[in-house]
Amino acid sequence: MTADHVRFALIGTGRIGQVHAANIAANPDATLAWVYDPIAEGAHAVAQRHGGVVASELETVFSSGDVDAVLISSPTPTHVDLIERAVDADIPALCEKPIDLDLARVDALRPKVEASAVPVALGFNRRFDAAFASARARVAAGEIGPLEQLSIISRDPAPPPASYVGVSGGIFRDMTIHDLDMARFFVPDIVDVFATGSALFDDGAREHGDFDTAQVVLRAASGTLVTITNSRHSAMGYDQRLEAFGGRGVLQVANAGTSLVSVSTADSVEAKPPYQDFFLERYAGAYAAELDEFIKLVRGAPSTSPTFADGRAALVLADAAQRSAIERVVVPVNLS
Amino acid sequence: MTADHVRFALIGTGRIGQVHAANIAANPDATLAWVYDPIAEGAHAVAQRHGGVVASELETVFSSGDVDAVLISSPTPTHVDLIERAVDADIPALCEKPIDLDLARVDALRPKVEASAVPVALGFNRRFDAAFASARARVAAGEIGPLEQLSIISRDPAPPPASYVGVSGGIFRDMTIHDLDMARFFVPDIVDVFATGSALFDDGAREHGDFDTAQVVLRAASGTLVTITNSRHSAMGYDQRLEAFGGRGVLQVANAGTSLVSVSTADSVEAKPPYQDFFLERYAGAYAAELDEFIKLVRGAPSTSPTFADGRAALVLADAAQRSAIERVVVPVNLS
Amino acid sequence: MTADHVRFALIGTGRIGQVHAANIAANPDATLAWVYDPIAEGAHAVAQRHGGVVASELETVFSSGDVDAVLISSPTPTHVDLIERAVDADIPALCEKPIDLDLARVDALRPKVEASAVPVALGFNRRFDAAFASARARVAAGEIGPLEQLSIISRDPAPPPASYVGVSGGIFRDMTIHDLDMARFFVPDIVDVFATGSALFDDGAREHGDFDTAQVVLRAASGTLVTITNSRHSAMGYDQRLEAFGGRGVLQVANAGTSLVSVSTADSVEAKPPYQDFFLERYAGAYAAELDEFIKLVRGAPSTSPTFADGRAALVLADAAQRSAIERVVVPVNLS
Amino acid sequence: MTADHVRFALIGTGRIGQVHAANIAANPDATLAWVYDPIAEGAHAVAQRHGGVVASELETVFSSGDVDAVLISSPTPTHVDLIERAVDADIPALCEKPIDLDLARVDALRPKVEASAVPVALGFNRRFDAAFASARARVAAGEIGPLEQLSIISRDPAPPPASYVGVSGGIFRDMTIHDLDMARFFVPDIVDVFATGSALFDDGAREHGDFDTAQVVLRAASGTLVTITNSRHSAMGYDQRLEAFGGRGVLQVANAGTSLVSVSTADSVEAKPPYQDFFLERYAGAYAAELDEFIKLVRGAPSTSPTFADGRAALVLADAAQRSAIERVVVPVNLS
Repeated sequence: MTADHVRFALIGTGRIGQVHAANIAANPDATLAWVYDPIAEGAHAVAQRHGGVVASELETVFSSGDVDAVLISSPTPTHVDLIERAVDADIPALCEKPIDLDLARVDALRPKVEASAVPVALGFNRRFDAAFASARARVAAGEIGPLEQLSIISRDPAPPPASYVGVSGGIFRDMTIHDLDMARFFVPDIVDVFATGSALFDDGAREHGDFDTAQVVLRAASGTLVTITNSRHSAMGYDQRLEAFGGRGVLQVANAGTSLVSVSTADSVEAKPPYQDFFLERYAGAYAAELDEFIKLVRGAPSTSPTFADGRAALVLADAAQRSAIERVVVPVNLS
Repeated sequence: MTADHVRFALIGTGRIGQVHAANIAANPDATLAWVYDPIAEGAHAVAQRHGGVVASELETVFSSGDVDAVLISSPTPTHVDLIERAVDADIPALCEKPIDLDLARVDALRPKVEASAVPVALGFNRRFDAAFASARARVAAGEIGPLEQLSIISRDPAPPPASYVGVSGGIFRDMTIHDLDMARFFVPDIVDVFATGSALFDDGAREHGDFDTAQVVLRAASGTLVTITNSRHSAMGYDQRLEAFGGRGVLQVANAGTSLVSVSTADSVEAKPPYQDFFLERYAGAYAAELDEFIKLVRGAPSTSPTFADGRAALVLADAAQRSAIERVVVPVNLS
Repeated sequence: MTADHVRFALIGTGRIGQVHAANIAANPDATLAWVYDPIAEGAHAVAQRHGGVVASELETVFSSGDVDAVLISSPTPTHVDLIERAVDADIPALCEKPIDLDLARVDALRPKVEASAVPVALGFNRRFDAAFASARARVAAGEIGPLEQLSIISRDPAPPPASYVGVSGGIFRDMTIHDLDMARFFVPDIVDVFATGSALFDDGAREHGDFDTAQVVLRAASGTLVTITNSRHSAMGYDQRLEAFGGRGVLQVANAGTSLVSVSTADSVEAKPPYQDFFLERYAGAYAAELDEFIKLVRGAPSTSPTFADGRAALVLADAAQRSAIERVVVPVNLS
Repeated sequence: MTADHVRFALIGTGRIGQVHAANIAANPDATLAWVYDPIAEGAHAVAQRHGGVVASELETVFSSGDVDAVLISSPTPTHVDLIERAVDADIPALCEKPIDLDLARVDALRPKVEASAVPVALGFNRRFDAAFASARARVAAGEIGPLEQLSIISRDPAPPPASYVGVSGGIFRDMTIHDLDMARFFVPDIVDVFATGSALFDDGAREHGDFDTAQVVLRAASGTLVTITNSRHSAMGYDQRLEAFGGRGVLQVANAGTSLVSVSTADSVEAKPPYQDFFLERYAGAYAAELDEFIKLVRGAPSTSPTFADGRAALVLADAAQRSAIERVVVPVNLS
């Protein structure tokens, strides 16, 4: 690590990888040193725009000697191997969620990560959204008294391609996993999971035995109840809301509007333009803040970056939700 | 006055008269004893619905001996005479605004009213609207610090018939007068008036040299500034807002919605149905509260009913606004 | 029945009985003919205020010969008997919910009610709330496309006395039952029920093995998912919201405010006074509309009054929720 | 001009100059080539952060031969001279408002600017705010019918230092000038001006015979009325609102919130954190968009950059407002 800059290697230059590349380039404490993608065009495009040397071999990244941190935004099935290589190479890693779709693979890696001092952070970007972070801090500060009910609404604008649905691991592991982590962000001690789903509009979901509409109820050891409401579509735009209900009040996180302008006519009043389209807009600030926090971790400063254990816990909850929805039972979980 | 009930005589059974009749009938402290209207059908319809004896002569009302209060909702040109008769007959009167369109007639009556102990109240119903009354009380309690700017927005849903415009006394005496009273409700010490108007859409206004769109700025001795924004039409429904800006904050009175339901689609989000149509809905509660307060006055209890002096002050301001708009000058006023 | 007025007998003059008495007295199509309550003081107070003869014996009400309809607002355990007597006496009945806490008793009465032509309506007043009714009509009209998810939030301001909790039948039969009926109002074909509850703050709930906090998920044959969020307290006032999510948009029913005034200061902006305290204010209009609709039913006109079958269905769902929450299983239901 | 980049010289590195420097550096079509400030430290700090060579003499900037555009963000009294030098040097200029506080100086420069083909743009940044621009475009598209009334509310968070007030030219030339330009953005054909002001809370204003609170009413040839409401303080944060009222509806621009989180408790509901503090946050996007548009102008593409004539017109209106407020008369203006 140079005195000033954390030198990043970026692995994976898809949609999210490009977001990370831009944030690294814009961050006064970071530099994009290396870029790797098996699709070389992607790596070259990113390097041209945001700096860094294109590695033709993945190995180069880990053995170059001038990498302070690796950012893993490659496809999910590669995450476990890449985290392992980062740990072996003694390079802190920020890995996109989920760690893997298969808990067995996660658990196989777990002892090594836990035994190592190398920091591994998971990309649960929503924790870094200013609104969710503020709501959680205010709950923690006791502003609304003991937290009794938490409601998370999360709806994507439109279903992914059917081909993606087939390899996604299902709605709970692919989409709900973000909300499950958000649930744990507010309520860590989940003890059981109920989930139910329907395939109401998306042929891809029907085709692959998946759901496009889901409802999850989590119960905490403390008795706090959490509800997650998911849909794979939303006519009005990306729907990302949260409501924390406590003994002395309620904190609500509203959707992000796209305009300060509203219109009133003979037909309707105070109508605003639709919400932001999707997560790249909605969580642009969160991705940047996530990087800031990870840089603290790399530098050995106190950091709230989500951990490997957080990544595992979200997957355990997603697996439980999947099983609950299929078998129609309540599934106990042990997150410790 | 009976032990329990204030016995009312209602004079004038038009649209507002019918509102007052219903409120008197529903008020546990009032009875509709007499009803008079030169158009006998109107009087009979009201008496049939809300009780009371129809007086065939106006004189009967004042000499019957069993009237505790008179409610004057007849046409404006009759108000001065009816107030005078009520005072002469020693019967408290609640008179619809304005006292008259001609300040000279008001001033001719003034000494008698001021010399008399008979209560005369003016029907500035908006003072009794829960929202405006609450905002004013909170300003008075110092919640927002010293009041520096007051903005009143008041737009009717649609222009009156051209025939009415011709006898209305003009927009300032007919429509703005309510807002001028509201201005004084918050800021009594007005010292000068600027007004400007346009005739943008209403042929009736154009035809009679009146305005359908107006803007008034009042200045108080204290330096507080008041703005009144008027229009004779409003596509979205009756527009009745107020904003009190003080050194420590702002109190805003929003429009009254007609539904708790909002809709969000791909076209727009959080759209609500149009506002209430007009004053009979918007101020239904205010008319009832106005009656309650007048009954206190009749009974000799402390009451905040607007006075004859309030009625005169509003007319002085309306006259000043009219002159300002025509002559394009700032008009000083003396309301004391 | 007189030509003009439906003559009502009111049985039960508690809090809700008094609301019904006032609405009957104020309804142009109804008269309060008889009032009965085993606590005679209650009956006399109501009769004095709203008219009607006090019946010293319940039998008088059913045999008087001048009763067109009976309104049953006595304690729950009396409902089954009173409905039966009304049916036997050929007098249409509007009965407060629930029919009974014991489904066996309801099912014992069911054949008689179904075999009879005497109308029996259930007091699910929220169906008549202008906002919920409008939202449902707009969903039915297809404004938001197929209904996919329905979220109902319902929180009382404060827990009932512990003594009441003990005889309430539990939160699902006592409180959630309204929301279960609202769920069926939008989504009739419920096929299974999941519920979970916690006792987080109310000693009464803890003492009686009940919950003060609950979450219910219903699944319809169509795949539509319904969530009900309940709490026995709410610092900000009565919390009554609904969100209908469809393929083309969302309809939201907001809480009813108590004022049009908001305040903005250095501490916070656009803050409004707390919501209405409880159901008597929030649903005042709904109770009156419920009566209007029942009068149609009495007169043989088309009516959307909730039926005995609706009352039974809500109880079946409440029983299923109770069992689900205790046994931690998903409970299939057959509402036909 | 290089093929890719417009090479900028920045003159003046105060608060706004730093904003422009950052935007130039971040703009893919621009480069910061030169930086000048008589206070050399400021110039060096900007150049170090955002690139560019520090010019020790102003002359260097105009004669270097490698400057495609000059951005003038030096103190107001220097603007006229710098614009003239830019025109003489054939270099397009974007100059902060106002052109000058003295209309005579502006008019002296006017013929040269009008005779020249060198583009001169004025920094009325609010025209580029997404919300105001959208509202204006929607008005222009006829969405609300003919524009009848325009209300602009503009309140700064806190008064400037008394020393600044003394050289500011007064509230109308210093602060209202932005709103006067916004008025012309929607309603170009202003024909007369009424203004009034008070000094209610700011000792600096009192000391220099200035106002801290002002109200302006503009009338257009078309009869459209415009109101501007100003205050030099606002407890709730920067208050920047606009309402365009037309024959078929209303478009409203709301204040920009600082958080999506609201809180409801027993004291108040739906309370949000205060608004943004001031213009640097509120108009961050507008400054960047202003630069984009000016770059189009520099490149000879169609551009909506405000012109020298716009700058002059705003000053004419500000002068008229100042005279109106002092002399208490309506002041006719000729903006052509």
